[in-house]
Amino acid sequence: MQATGVEECALAPGSRKVLAEELAKPFRQEVRDAVAALEGQPPPKLVGFLANRDPAAKKYATWTGKAFEADGLRFELRQVEELELEHALEAANKDPDIDGIMIYYPVFGQRPSFHGGSQDDYLRDAVSPYKDVEGLNHYYRSALYRNNRFVDDASAKKCVLPCTPLAVIKTLESLDVYDSQLPVGNRMEGKVAAVINRSEVVGRPVAAMLANDGATVYSIDIDNIYIFRRGKLDVPPAGTSIEEAVQSADIVVLGVPSESYKVDASLIKENAVVINVSTYKNIDEKVLLAQRPGVRYMGQIGKVTVAMLERNLMRLRHNFCQDVKAGKDGHPKIV
Amino acid sequence: MQATGVEECALAPGSRKVLAEELAKPFRQEVRDAVAALEGQPPPKLVGFLANRDPAAKKYATWTGKAFEADGLRFELRQVEELELEHALEAANKDPDIDGIMIYYPVFGQRPSFHGGSQDDYLRDAVSPYKDVEGLNHYYRSALYRNNRFVDDASAKKCVLPCTPLAVIKTLESLDVYDSQLPVGNRMEGKVAAVINRSEVVGRPVAAMLANDGATVYSIDIDNIYIFRRGKLDVPPAGTSIEEAVQSADIVVLGVPSESYKVDASLIKENAVVINVSTYKNIDEKVLLAQRPGVRYMGQIGKVTVAMLERNLMRLRHNFCQDVKAGKDGHPKIV
Repeated sequence: MQATGVEECALAPGSRKVLAEELAKPFRQEVRDAVAALEGQPPPKLVGFLANRDPAAKKYATWTGKAFEADGLRFELRQVEELELEHALEAANKDPDIDGIMIYYPVFGQRPSFHGGSQDDYLRDAVSPYKDVEGLNHYYRSALYRNNRFVDDASAKKCVLPCTPLAVIKTLESLDVYDSQLPVGNRMEGKVAAVINRSEVVGRPVAAMLANDGATVYSIDIDNIYIFRRGKLDVPPAGTSIEEAVQSADIVVLGVPSESYKVDASLIKENAVVINVSTYKNIDEKVLLAQRPGVRYMGQIGKVTVAMLERNLMRLRHNFCQDVKAGKDGHPKIV
Repeated sequence: MQATGVEECALAPGSRKVLAEELAKPFRQEVRDAVAALEGQPPPKLVGFLANRDPAAKKYATWTGKAFEADGLRFELRQVEELELEHALEAANKDPDIDGIMIYYPVFGQRPSFHGGSQDDYLRDAVSPYKDVEGLNHYYRSALYRNNRFVDDASAKKCVLPCTPLAVIKTLESLDVYDSQLPVGNRMEGKVAAVINRSEVVGRPVAAMLANDGATVYSIDIDNIYIFRRGKLDVPPAGTSIEEAVQSADIVVLGVPSESYKVDASLIKENAVVINVSTYKNIDEKVLLAQRPGVRYMGQIGKVTVAMLERNLMRLRHNFCQDVKAGKDGHPKIV
């Protein structure tokens, strides 16, 4: 056995690292099969807008381009000045050749403001719901928080789900954390999750999706803890600490955008699944894998997220192909 | 002459303080007349949701209640826990007796998040456009930024405009800064404005409204300056400073949510109009009024904003009365 990477270290019994690239493979195969079945239709096209000089955004765009090429989809990266973005976005919203649109954030970033309302939040909602491949528009978040799963009366067109949160769910499904013996919508019954981050982009959608499937979710932010249960928000008993929440969790999702934030690995329950969605490592993975038995740990989820971008793009094509060709705007009615 | 307040100080020639309460009177009279003309219809009803313990929010709610009572409108303040707000809001969105809804921010406040997306921004967009008396929904901001002024093809139903920004515009109109000889949409031609704050709630809508009417607007935020001209965003010549922008401005709008931020009063152009929309005073008003000739200064705009709430509520009743009774949700199509 070669001595490279984490695998060489002594692992606690049953613990292992889960690689996003491996996990993404079957999802990408599904997409390839679906593209092949399109027969004569042009392959779905995603346009990504890059208006910053963030190397992480660039890297993500490069991964996306490579994966899309390999899987038979079209991806076009459009680099624009931040002040040109809104016009460019409006044109793309109306272009019948484009099936999906995404923006690499931050564009304007977070600036001090008068009781909230950033320009990046504005942009997120300015992507047409017919083309919102990231599912981050208010339209889709609102459906998710209400557990409304379809955009049509016939229940044939599923709502797009936010990509990174969806990547978390699909990772958990692949690791058999979901109980497939139970009916859809109940497959997390009895499970406890701790999600550290409550942004509208990652943490809150993850918590909502887990709760919609029956889990009890500790949603942890910098200054408080909520409990999400299906259709219900609650506060935990007074004095409940982050440590207690993490200790009770079968699933831990780490999303703190800070280099210094670390969860104590010794708190993680045996056999838990730990998924780090932050660009920073929010836990010491060596300690975690060496000391906690049965733990499965994913340190970087980006490549699963890219597979979910592909999946969502196929969904948009399926749902709205005719509407996009007809140049429809506004919002379809969610049911 | 009695020696009370600012009026007692030596004023520079032609300079004066403009009181929001006085300025609001004719707008409130218009509303009273419109309510009287409703004949048999129940008076329009606004529901305000208060989920914080912020004394400024409470004061604003109290002013609103008093003004509404005096002017023949209905106002109901609903105090709710922050975790109950979304459900309460959803019920109000559907209640056919309610014409308008507003939320007192902050509810959840600004928390560190993953590339933006706060729960307060989510809530702002969760108010139905049929009832969004503050005009802060993405739906109305998006129309404003595109200079789309109507929600119907017949141009009979004007878009709701954000209240505080609208209060700024109506203040300027009342002070004859708008040139009524010019056609609507051009009445700020040749005027220069400096708006310090670029939040989605105040500064950007103000800048957009002034630009939509023909002004050249310096939109100033903590780390940069943009120029808004009708339908166009630009960057000023390299090296343009906040001081230069303010010195060139016929209209200065101050909206910095910080106690320590002060614009140097000596920078203000003669005969300029200065409107402070922050809860903090962003300029030394005594120095301003004593030293700068012809300056008109409004230090607190809240009571004009309340008059605009009334005006917007009447607009919502006019635009959507039938839709609200029919329990419509979703978004009307803006033209």
